Amino acid sequence: MITGSQALTTDFYEITMSAAYHAHDMNGEATFSLFIRDLPPQRGFIVAAGLEQVLDYLEGFSFSGEDIDYLRGLDRFTPGFLDYLGGVRFTGEVWALPEGSICFADEPLLEVTAPIIEAQLVETMIINLVNLHSMLASKAARSVLAAQGRALVDFGLRRTQGPDAGMAAARAAALVGFAGTSNVAAARELGLPPVGTMAHSFVEAFGDEIASFRAFASIFPDHTVILVDTYDSVAGLQRAVQVAGELKAQGHKLVGVRLDSGDMVALSRQAREMLDQAGLEDSLVVVSGSLDEYRVAEMLAQGAKVDLLAVGTKVVCSADAPYFDIAYKLVSYNERPTLKLSAGKRTWVSAKQVWRQLDAQGKLAHDLLGLRGENQPGQPLLAQVMAGGRRIGPREHWRQARRRFQEQLAALPEACRRLESPARAAVEITSALKGLQERTQAQVLGNSGRL
Amino acid sequence: MITGSQALTTDFYEITMSAAYHAHDMNGEATFSLFIRDLPPQRGFIVAAGLEQVLDYLEGFSFSGEDIDYLRGLDRFTPGFLDYLGGVRFTGEVWALPEGSICFADEPLLEVTAPIIEAQLVETMIINLVNLHSMLASKAARSVLAAQGRALVDFGLRRTQGPDAGMAAARAAALVGFAGTSNVAAARELGLPPVGTMAHSFVEAFGDEIASFRAFASIFPDHTVILVDTYDSVAGLQRAVQVAGELKAQGHKLVGVRLDSGDMVALSRQAREMLDQAGLEDSLVVVSGSLDEYRVAEMLAQGAKVDLLAVGTKVVCSADAPYFDIAYKLVSYNERPTLKLSAGKRTWVSAKQVWRQLDAQGKLAHDLLGLRGENQPGQPLLAQVMAGGRRIGPREHWRQARRRFQEQLAALPEACRRLESPARAAVEITSALKGLQERTQAQVLGNSGRL
Repeated sequence: MITGSQALTTDFYEITMSAAYHAHDMNGEATFSLFIRDLPPQRGFIVAAGLEQVLDYLEGFSFSGEDIDYLRGLDRFTPGFLDYLGGVRFTGEVWALPEGSICFADEPLLEVTAPIIEAQLVETMIINLVNLHSMLASKAARSVLAAQGRALVDFGLRRTQGPDAGMAAARAAALVGFAGTSNVAAARELGLPPVGTMAHSFVEAFGDEIASFRAFASIFPDHTVILVDTYDSVAGLQRAVQVAGELKAQGHKLVGVRLDSGDMVALSRQAREMLDQAGLEDSLVVVSGSLDEYRVAEMLAQGAKVDLLAVGTKVVCSADAPYFDIAYKLVSYNERPTLKLSAGKRTWVSAKQVWRQLDAQGKLAHDLLGLRGENQPGQPLLAQVMAGGRRIGPREHWRQARRRFQEQLAALPEACRRLESPARAAVEITSALKGLQERTQAQVLGNSGRL
Repeated sequence: MITGSQALTTDFYEITMSAAYHAHDMNGEATFSLFIRDLPPQRGFIVAAGLEQVLDYLEGFSFSGEDIDYLRGLDRFTPGFLDYLGGVRFTGEVWALPEGSICFADEPLLEVTAPIIEAQLVETMIINLVNLHSMLASKAARSVLAAQGRALVDFGLRRTQGPDAGMAAARAAALVGFAGTSNVAAARELGLPPVGTMAHSFVEAFGDEIASFRAFASIFPDHTVILVDTYDSVAGLQRAVQVAGELKAQGHKLVGVRLDSGDMVALSRQAREMLDQAGLEDSLVVVSGSLDEYRVAEMLAQGAKVDLLAVGTKVVCSADAPYFDIAYKLVSYNERPTLKLSAGKRTWVSAKQVWRQLDAQGKLAHDLLGLRGENQPGQPLLAQVMAGGRRIGPREHWRQARRRFQEQLAALPEACRRLESPARAAVEITSALKGLQERTQAQVLGNSGRL
């Protein structure tokens, strides 16, 4: 492992472009806008997340001596540029949607205004972090919708795309309302309860199923969820109920039973009935195993009786939409609006704002996308969160972001909340933005020699 | 950020089970087997990767004082167990497929034998790391097949699921033959060339396209790839050829032009023709923009003229198969073979070996999956790589793994290399393994009270 800063976790062209800007004394003020071009077909909305990670990254941005030595060794850069790079910090400003905000395609999640070299050097990590966190929060939010008020926990760490993505997945899930995570490091960092009790291997190591249940319950008499499907779920349930009775006689309570395979609808109903008949109405039926929002919705529609849903793999890698079509685009340089004309990749010029318009029932009617300086009705969604390279105000706790998400979700029309073929809220463009866009486009077309 | 070791990056149940084992003085020798149950439909083979990361993790495994303090604060664990946990190291042995090996469903990628508490505590990270690296290598290998000998580079860092996954993606791509990466940190760590020159924002900041090309080329006269599609690809190509001529007059050579949008087949042919006509036969046509193996194969089949393919998003998150159905299962405890009977999740018992059988032409005929101690014809694929918690032999360089991959790929039948509906090599089971499996199953069924 080579030591160094996070500053080299970037695309090489950020550094070559910076060298060219530096050589040409070109470091004017640039604004870059981060947005998602098109939502994946299965997404009705985006949950903005990752801002705290971006601000941490920007506050700590600098190249270490080892980084500069490495770049020197490539034999591409002048000593003057390398000296300059060694001293670069991020000094710009950031406007952003606070975490937990619900947003849509074309709306900026974040805008950076800074000397162009700084704004360029941080591009790759900003895209990476916002993509990861927002994608995972947007996916986890769908499990919340499907669960209809039932508790959810994150069991996904083993199948996230790397251990860091496991931290992001646990946080994203907490942000949209999950009650806990199996990831102990994440539970610690987030102040969430760590969840989970036993695996199949535990039962197998004992060989005798009821002996394994008793061995566990004797150590954790108030914190046992028994996994019943190692050999046969119904026999396992019977043994779990027996052990629950033994616990009860000692003044303890079985927290629950966990089903992990088989016909979850029938088994969950049977489990509920067996627990209830044994006077264990408070013990939970926990379900896990390849759960995502589609499976949860299906199970519940078929009458499953479940208290706690443990979701994993498909949610924590956002399996049905494992990336966003997210972009960080130059929208102005030295106060001149900029855009590209590349096929299928047009962008809205200049620094922007989004105003949310609610109807008489308090539901989202539409959003208005316009220029940052405009005065428009509705609630402006982007706020300035960084000035001079430093956070404005204190770090926001994810629980605050959760409250924001829950409020905005409550205002989201039913059609946008559908899991299948969701509607998207209308995003209208102000006439000021339209006008500037058209003038810029005409100018760029004139200058570019488009054939 | 709370400090601590990586040991808490684990599922909570690993710790609760360990506490129960510890309380019951139950820490016999366990063997866990890591394998993939079913390949995703679009995968004909798996490229094993992530072993070096697993061995690093196991060698460094320990709980810090902060970790133990955190666990103490949960009020679940006895002081005796917490003391024990503070001193736990991984002391076991590991057998594994070397990185770059080609393998199939049901074949162990890795087997751990250790006191059960140690083997259990490391489960989550082992699954996570092998899943991530093997999934990304298996995906990247398909781009190599599609490119038919053309050079490939990794441009994916901005869309990987987290910065760490970006390091894994660059390494996985290098392992299967990619020539470079845009990820500077990864290029440094791997000793690969960092690649990339300019973005659309560079052209836009100048406004005047040819001025931006000249500005870049004047600083990097021998290392410039011009991005031509900011406004109009054909006009951009004309300007690139003009700047290439200016460079040539000064004794330099334009490395290439990059196409990033539009009709890649037509544009690449036009670019090639324009470069050739200008006497720039050595300048490269580079293509990027939503490339994966499907798109690459299609473009080349339609006659695209491309020298260098820069792949990104869809490859680095393995978009069509963003996780493997990977499992780490207890296969024996205290020399007693174990298995579970859960619906659709059966596993092969005991420590195993895979022997590869080649045909007369040196192509893979079939694999034989059997018990580790058996004597079978063919090349045994799993090797012991760790004893007493320490690596056996030196760390392997990824270039060695690349050679292994290339050799094994050459031996893979054409039908297994198809991108669509690939065939899978036959994996036959030895009669010794079959016999032990049947006896164990009968015994477990007898004991388990399956209804």
